[in-house]
Amino acid sequence: MQFNLFKVPIAGPDDVSGVDKLIAQHALEAKDIIAIIGKTEGNGCVNDFTRGYAVRSLQEYFSTHIGKQAAKRISYVMSGGTEGVISPHFTIISRVNNQEAAAVGHSESGLKSLAIGVAHTPVLLPESIGRLAQVNEVADAVGRAMQDARIDDIKDVHFVQIKCPLLTVESIREAESRGQTVVTEETYKSMGFSRGASALGVAVALQEICKDELTEQDICHNWSKYSRVASTSAGSELNYCEIVVFGNSHHAEGELFIEHGVMEDSIDAAALTKLLENHDAEPIQIFAKAEADPSGVIRGRRHTMLDDSDINHTRHARAVVGGVLASVCKDPMIYISGGAEHQGPAGGGPVAVIFRRKTVN
Amino acid sequence: MQFNLFKVPIAGPDDVSGVDKLIAQHALEAKDIIAIIGKTEGNGCVNDFTRGYAVRSLQEYFSTHIGKQAAKRISYVMSGGTEGVISPHFTIISRVNNQEAAAVGHSESGLKSLAIGVAHTPVLLPESIGRLAQVNEVADAVGRAMQDARIDDIKDVHFVQIKCPLLTVESIREAESRGQTVVTEETYKSMGFSRGASALGVAVALQEICKDELTEQDICHNWSKYSRVASTSAGSELNYCEIVVFGNSHHAEGELFIEHGVMEDSIDAAALTKLLENHDAEPIQIFAKAEADPSGVIRGRRHTMLDDSDINHTRHARAVVGGVLASVCKDPMIYISGGAEHQGPAGGGPVAVIFRRKTVN
Amino acid sequence: MQFNLFKVPIAGPDDVSGVDKLIAQHALEAKDIIAIIGKTEGNGCVNDFTRGYAVRSLQEYFSTHIGKQAAKRISYVMSGGTEGVISPHFTIISRVNNQEAAAVGHSESGLKSLAIGVAHTPVLLPESIGRLAQVNEVADAVGRAMQDARIDDIKDVHFVQIKCPLLTVESIREAESRGQTVVTEETYKSMGFSRGASALGVAVALQEICKDELTEQDICHNWSKYSRVASTSAGSELNYCEIVVFGNSHHAEGELFIEHGVMEDSIDAAALTKLLENHDAEPIQIFAKAEADPSGVIRGRRHTMLDDSDINHTRHARAVVGGVLASVCKDPMIYISGGAEHQGPAGGGPVAVIFRRKTVN
Amino acid sequence: MQFNLFKVPIAGPDDVSGVDKLIAQHALEAKDIIAIIGKTEGNGCVNDFTRGYAVRSLQEYFSTHIGKQAAKRISYVMSGGTEGVISPHFTIISRVNNQEAAAVGHSESGLKSLAIGVAHTPVLLPESIGRLAQVNEVADAVGRAMQDARIDDIKDVHFVQIKCPLLTVESIREAESRGQTVVTEETYKSMGFSRGASALGVAVALQEICKDELTEQDICHNWSKYSRVASTSAGSELNYCEIVVFGNSHHAEGELFIEHGVMEDSIDAAALTKLLENHDAEPIQIFAKAEADPSGVIRGRRHTMLDDSDINHTRHARAVVGGVLASVCKDPMIYISGGAEHQGPAGGGPVAVIFRRKTVN
Repeated sequence: MQFNLFKVPIAGPDDVSGVDKLIAQHALEAKDIIAIIGKTEGNGCVNDFTRGYAVRSLQEYFSTHIGKQAAKRISYVMSGGTEGVISPHFTIISRVNNQEAAAVGHSESGLKSLAIGVAHTPVLLPESIGRLAQVNEVADAVGRAMQDARIDDIKDVHFVQIKCPLLTVESIREAESRGQTVVTEETYKSMGFSRGASALGVAVALQEICKDELTEQDICHNWSKYSRVASTSAGSELNYCEIVVFGNSHHAEGELFIEHGVMEDSIDAAALTKLLENHDAEPIQIFAKAEADPSGVIRGRRHTMLDDSDINHTRHARAVVGGVLASVCKDPMIYISGGAEHQGPAGGGPVAVIFRRKTVN
Repeated sequence: MQFNLFKVPIAGPDDVSGVDKLIAQHALEAKDIIAIIGKTEGNGCVNDFTRGYAVRSLQEYFSTHIGKQAAKRISYVMSGGTEGVISPHFTIISRVNNQEAAAVGHSESGLKSLAIGVAHTPVLLPESIGRLAQVNEVADAVGRAMQDARIDDIKDVHFVQIKCPLLTVESIREAESRGQTVVTEETYKSMGFSRGASALGVAVALQEICKDELTEQDICHNWSKYSRVASTSAGSELNYCEIVVFGNSHHAEGELFIEHGVMEDSIDAAALTKLLENHDAEPIQIFAKAEADPSGVIRGRRHTMLDDSDINHTRHARAVVGGVLASVCKDPMIYISGGAEHQGPAGGGPVAVIFRRKTVN
Repeated sequence: MQFNLFKVPIAGPDDVSGVDKLIAQHALEAKDIIAIIGKTEGNGCVNDFTRGYAVRSLQEYFSTHIGKQAAKRISYVMSGGTEGVISPHFTIISRVNNQEAAAVGHSESGLKSLAIGVAHTPVLLPESIGRLAQVNEVADAVGRAMQDARIDDIKDVHFVQIKCPLLTVESIREAESRGQTVVTEETYKSMGFSRGASALGVAVALQEICKDELTEQDICHNWSKYSRVASTSAGSELNYCEIVVFGNSHHAEGELFIEHGVMEDSIDAAALTKLLENHDAEPIQIFAKAEADPSGVIRGRRHTMLDDSDINHTRHARAVVGGVLASVCKDPMIYISGGAEHQGPAGGGPVAVIFRRKTVN
Repeated sequence: MQFNLFKVPIAGPDDVSGVDKLIAQHALEAKDIIAIIGKTEGNGCVNDFTRGYAVRSLQEYFSTHIGKQAAKRISYVMSGGTEGVISPHFTIISRVNNQEAAAVGHSESGLKSLAIGVAHTPVLLPESIGRLAQVNEVADAVGRAMQDARIDDIKDVHFVQIKCPLLTVESIREAESRGQTVVTEETYKSMGFSRGASALGVAVALQEICKDELTEQDICHNWSKYSRVASTSAGSELNYCEIVVFGNSHHAEGELFIEHGVMEDSIDAAALTKLLENHDAEPIQIFAKAEADPSGVIRGRRHTMLDDSDINHTRHARAVVGGVLASVCKDPMIYISGGAEHQGPAGGGPVAVIFRRKTVN
């Protein structure tokens, strides 16, 4: 079992030409793709249709190659918002089965290599979003995704990307018509609750926090409870959670591996600098989370992101973290997702790097 | 002659409490203040009233301390836009005359120290904005500001901050009523032209470009002509250009000095890193310019700042450069101004650092 | 006692030239001014500094005319947001004492004429905002303002304009540092709670709803409880509520009077059309409230205002109602304020017209 | 030949359920559809992907019903921006051939009925956009569309809807790489030029202006030249112009007909009121254009739309005109498109109503 990762620029949410080129050149086979993680150029908030547009364009493309059913089985995780220098792109993840490795039950090299697994929760009702029900469903699905990736040890999980639903005016009305209440009546705010509950689901699954001590009131309030590897993103184009677990596994082989760090705040460039210095390998993709410090202060200085009624704070935060990390890795085509509720410490967030080992001649 | 620099946070455009505290503590005398350079939390674009509000609040404050006339003589240079982590603040610059130094005609130390001079152009008619007329007026005023600072050598000029006017719907109509044309009928675009012409005025004054070879068509088109030290900012609160020249002079004394670098693009953290490494001194304030690369590309990757109809590209660019430089100097209370037309290379911009020499015991 | 109303255009938040002209022409004496109600061109949301800038500019202007104390006694009610056709302006309200009328204790004409009274609540702590504490304080202050206006009958009150505070990141932190909770941690959302509680205070004072049946949970949830004459507007420039009551009184005289209607939704032009048809008098100013229908639907059609993460829904709503009412009264220089929580039915809002009686020759 | 018009709400740009329902109910056959004109909920500016997303979703839907080729032959004209009360929807236009009517060469009733024709220009190079080349291509295509509709008399044309391309950073670079210049380097501004040139093409075709007297400098400068029936909308999803001509024809039959008026400014409700009063028929759809008055003034009052750097003026204008016309026709599900350059007088725009004749029993 070997996992490959390809990064292609896109000229718009519907641009599948980069994917098509890889397939035409036989660098990649459509049937091997398990997930596509993208940054699309919408506002990353409630009325961002670039996420759905990208998913639809990719599904339509793959339908003609591998059929409608197989096209739907791919996990599509689109994060809107390419503020500042962040460059729109797709990260394509494929899994190739290696017969010999399978026979011996572990990788030939003896090293742990990048392994990726996917899973999804059942459909979440509007009244479950941002609540313990969502936490629990996500925790279960993370376990299934680890199995899918054949990652045995929770310490080998370095990044968990989740796409989760949000509340819309329509879904709130629908829940209310059934006599249910929702966690918030504000659609933009529901994105934060959904991201937060998903992240806590990861923290539960990876034993970063204790499930029994977690209460519904902790969600989006108690920032001391968080996951160091969760990255969650909300969108209106799905009504369940899509989970992609990244880690290293003995059962996988190949040149790729993943490591992670934690940014203490949005200008903590050192988190990435250290990761790059500590590994004599080529970084090929970076995944990170961004958020405006909820205290209103960063390094003792007031910031204005939370009081800005013209630009949502998630947009400010993505622009900052995208710039900071791009200045370290010298590539703006990286994955920065906004809204880091319970993902890393308050104001900070996880950063993961996928490396390619240097080939020994 | 000694120049001092104080940096105070502000809780809003009208917050003069930081200035008042310095004066109450006798750290500073109101009569010695020659300039206040601020970052205020508006959109930094046409309808940003936080700049004017800050100027009015400061003038009103100083009027009660040193009288209306003296309050008006201070140069107020407000730059709107604190996107991302940039923290609203005022930088207060004062000049104290030192009798002994004046007598010998140069600083006691033999070292060149920070020297700052101010000047302003005459009122610019709407039809002059963004044209050679503005370039020439600014070039002349830069010379006067150098004299005011007693900087003899153009090589000793490290930063020239200019506040310049923009066109409004009203001023365009007024010019047209006199049969004149303006450089653009779009108010937001006029900010770029005014910044560009001002920067070229600096480049002419400092012999960075040849005046005779400059044509009106070069303004905001020929990006190969630029100043490495100009920082210009447009606002609706004045109808002339306000110039503040920063450099080092034998005639000045004190612990402060200034150096500059040039960011090649908006994620060129190295420009600042090198400046900090090359000087064994404490950085106390940073001034830099930010712009979205006009090519639409940065490090070979497409950016979306110029095509974003929800957030102006100057706002994106400030968020990025503010984050990148704050991650290097570890302080988000720095001066980042947007729109770097003819200020540094296309997509990049000047960065200047004011240092305090370490005291030898 | 006679009340006059003047409407002057402003070129920016700091433009006092229209007020100055009236005073220079002796149309108005500064000492007689009791309130200035303005529309300024900010975003009308949290970080709108145009409101404070206008207040400061007016206070500074009046200070030089009638002294600092008298300048502060004027009620300044600024509402930000001139989306669409709404034209920035100040409405100046003055009170002139008429000796003879006072002697007989009622107006000479026998008709009820426009009477205006002001009052304000004590300073509200952050934890009181959006809660019953605010409702009660406002209800009391409305009673005092009615007395000030000498309006005896609650049926004669046709418009109650209130400027109320909001929560900021700083004030929330301050409250939390004292162990208090606030109604919401979102600054933008706090504006709605403060407007809603203020409006319910009016409804209590005018017996539109029963105080004893009102619970804290009703605030911003139970839209069936509302005032038909309240117009409330939140801003960061004050920490108490400023109340201006408009009505008709036997104790007042002059040509002006006020009537009101209720818009059932934001395109209910008929509410204003009927008011204008029913009175053979010249409309000289219109005051109205605007809000995006919280149901997400208007006249059975879905609207997108509540799901828009680029433009706040209050801004959409003001643009609509401003256009609709301006199309009826043929003047875009009218007062439209956003956020009509508990001000008129859900999705609608009060509309009041100040008329000048036609002079009989 | 009979033309039918159906109006269906959409829950998002990809919502084809309304169309599907009509087809499932046999109210409409997919093969008869000639055009779909939609309002989608993006920003209506450069980076609005909702237009392309809607087109793609419809094409995909129709491909499965009538094949890819037939799906592409339908004209898709999507206008982004549902500010204020405007409700997202599709207007579906179909043409049914009536054998008997065809035989006699005119409609059975003797009345002129709604007739619609489509055509498109060749692909326009970036350097042609906003210039006379575009005007001429559009004028030719309008003639072809009239033939397609079998409208003989230019006086019978009441609305011409055009979707036209815009410049993007990429297309500008491409043109420059071939040594060509473009009309503007600002992508948002290019939308106005493209709309303006398209509208002048209509004016030329319908002899509203004289082709020989039109110069390139007139485009987006000389507002006295305009069409009273053109409605043009720019989008990044096509590189040619798509033309849909609406008029009345003796060759058509059925209950529908179209009439038009001209709004003199954005609050000219009377333009629509008169149309509705003059025809004893049921209005079933309204098409109108909106723009911020380029003079900066409306009914003698200053507006702030052109100086707003947070919200583009086309968005303000759509919100206003949408509200005003919805208040007259009592339905917010109408087509209001922004940017009315050379479409009606400066600040105003065309308004067309499709009516259904009352059936005589």
